[in-house]
Amino acid sequence: MLERYGHGGDLESAAKAYGREEGSFLDFSANINPLGPPEHVLKQLDGALSSIIRYPDPGHRQFKYILGQKLKIGEDNICVGNGAAECMSLILLGLDLQKVGIIEPCFSEYRQLSEQFNVEVYSIRGREDKDWKAAVEEIGELLQQVDLLFIGQPNNPNGVQYSLRELRILAEMAEQWQTYMVIDEAFIDFIAQQQQASLLSELEKYPRTILVRSMTKFYAIPGLRLGYTLAHPDVIRSMTGKQVTWSVNGLALLAGEAALHSGEEFERSTLELISNERVVLVQGLTNLGCEVSPGEANFLLVKLPAPWRSIDMQRELGMRGILIRSCAMYPGLGESHIRIAVKGTDANQVFLKEIQHVITKRI
Amino acid sequence: MLERYGHGGDLESAAKAYGREEGSFLDFSANINPLGPPEHVLKQLDGALSSIIRYPDPGHRQFKYILGQKLKIGEDNICVGNGAAECMSLILLGLDLQKVGIIEPCFSEYRQLSEQFNVEVYSIRGREDKDWKAAVEEIGELLQQVDLLFIGQPNNPNGVQYSLRELRILAEMAEQWQTYMVIDEAFIDFIAQQQQASLLSELEKYPRTILVRSMTKFYAIPGLRLGYTLAHPDVIRSMTGKQVTWSVNGLALLAGEAALHSGEEFERSTLELISNERVVLVQGLTNLGCEVSPGEANFLLVKLPAPWRSIDMQRELGMRGILIRSCAMYPGLGESHIRIAVKGTDANQVFLKEIQHVITKRI
Repeated sequence: MLERYGHGGDLESAAKAYGREEGSFLDFSANINPLGPPEHVLKQLDGALSSIIRYPDPGHRQFKYILGQKLKIGEDNICVGNGAAECMSLILLGLDLQKVGIIEPCFSEYRQLSEQFNVEVYSIRGREDKDWKAAVEEIGELLQQVDLLFIGQPNNPNGVQYSLRELRILAEMAEQWQTYMVIDEAFIDFIAQQQQASLLSELEKYPRTILVRSMTKFYAIPGLRLGYTLAHPDVIRSMTGKQVTWSVNGLALLAGEAALHSGEEFERSTLELISNERVVLVQGLTNLGCEVSPGEANFLLVKLPAPWRSIDMQRELGMRGILIRSCAMYPGLGESHIRIAVKGTDANQVFLKEIQHVITKRI
Repeated sequence: MLERYGHGGDLESAAKAYGREEGSFLDFSANINPLGPPEHVLKQLDGALSSIIRYPDPGHRQFKYILGQKLKIGEDNICVGNGAAECMSLILLGLDLQKVGIIEPCFSEYRQLSEQFNVEVYSIRGREDKDWKAAVEEIGELLQQVDLLFIGQPNNPNGVQYSLRELRILAEMAEQWQTYMVIDEAFIDFIAQQQQASLLSELEKYPRTILVRSMTKFYAIPGLRLGYTLAHPDVIRSMTGKQVTWSVNGLALLAGEAALHSGEEFERSTLELISNERVVLVQGLTNLGCEVSPGEANFLLVKLPAPWRSIDMQRELGMRGILIRSCAMYPGLGESHIRIAVKGTDANQVFLKEIQHVITKRI
């Protein structure tokens, strides 16, 4: 299994496992914008390499200013983090928590980080027949039991969103039970604005609702690390109180500042590509006997046809230079689930061809 | 005061305070190698910018391998961090600590991070007539009272080392009292090998001794963030157990790998420059009536002649485009102490000329 560190995108382990160069893989195991970073972001970085001789701004002032303008939100509502993962750790360290709730299957770091910081995890299961969502009433019960709830919106690994109506009910309940609700919007940028269900513009009404976002997926800069949290100033202060000075590096801030100026063309091209290619992948995989969850994000949860197990498929494709995410370690999913990123047209065609070979060969 | 975030090197605050461009300052407030990063490190980064579309290796395997080879130490003795500051935070989070000891004046993050993570701080004062060191017996008493002791070696802000003999006595006592001893060697690379007092090769004898080192000062890459800890595998495991996945970014790892291959020429040039220029600065400042502590590192603790206060001098020099560190916030130091980096010949000459102007003008 490639998920030695609990995640996809581990090219070093893949290179060892399959005896190939790290750079030779088509990586469907990490959900990064197939367009790569905007041209001007790379240019900006290229011209600013020499800035690494200076400390990063420990106050992230420029990035916060631009982000605040773009999202129409106050700078004291923003905490900038060394990736969304650091944001989550600061939430766990900064708020006084005993119990955290999660809805499985979900991003493994919710549990991992909670346990890492000695917070007990209560979990409920999403229902397969409800696209791995849980009923609002069930989540409401969980909200009563815990001090904080993590929700993926869209959820990883299946890409499904809760509706705005559902989110509002949950946010109301979170206030009522004095429970924090962390909505992980790491992949929400991959969903067209009018389809996004986000409480971004309603945060003032819900001081216990916390949004976590990532800059690294949509702008294709995971190597640099950059994420942010949007929440009530009290929450933000608790988080920054636990943040290590200079945890966000200078090039990440620079790239982030440039990325926020990317303009609509980059956003439009990305959304168009993802939305078209998702259809192609769903169609191709369905034709091969796979069941594909109806996600809206830039990745798909796929149930392989019997008797395929995800780890066998991972190895078969890995030998062919294609990396996929085995979902065997997601509680709630069986041994036959994989997660794949939606990539560019050519890569997706290669993927479909190879998985067809593999499946056909075995039958 | 420029130390809004508790440290030097804050060009953004300086630009606002003095109405100048960030890039226009000669920055003596951050202690970075004046030679800048080794040429081949910049070249390496330049050629690898596109690697930011991949996640960093969460296991830091390549960097650890090269570092282990270079320092002749096992990879399970190494924890790689997002700067030395993250290393310290992982120590505080990973070990079960109630009380931490520090010897003031010292790097402000020892206290700051300890308080941040709810660990009580016990402090003793170094003695001015002993170059701000404390007597071994005093430190021994402190070791009995606390669970962990921080020692700067060389110490920031004065650049003085404890002797190897003193360190061994302290390490023995730390074992006896079952107290961890964190030796912060962030600046030790700036001291010639034969003058360095380090327990690096004796760590097996002292499982409670922990070395923290920085890659960002000597290799001039503070914007990228990279540090590491050397210690017993049990300590390392406790630290990595609290580390957030991917906290060390990909370009930092890449730059670090290249930097470790810099070779002796870069090290020799740096040491020669620093050692020559330190003498020039000491001489020039002494001539102006300053008292300079006899530090061995790439920075100097300077007591201004009466009636100068550090914050006034900081402003005067700031207006002239030179940044220095006011030491007013270091407990144990008076209002007349400043810290300056040892920079290159030209910069140091400008600094000496300007401070002479300022001091002469006022008298």
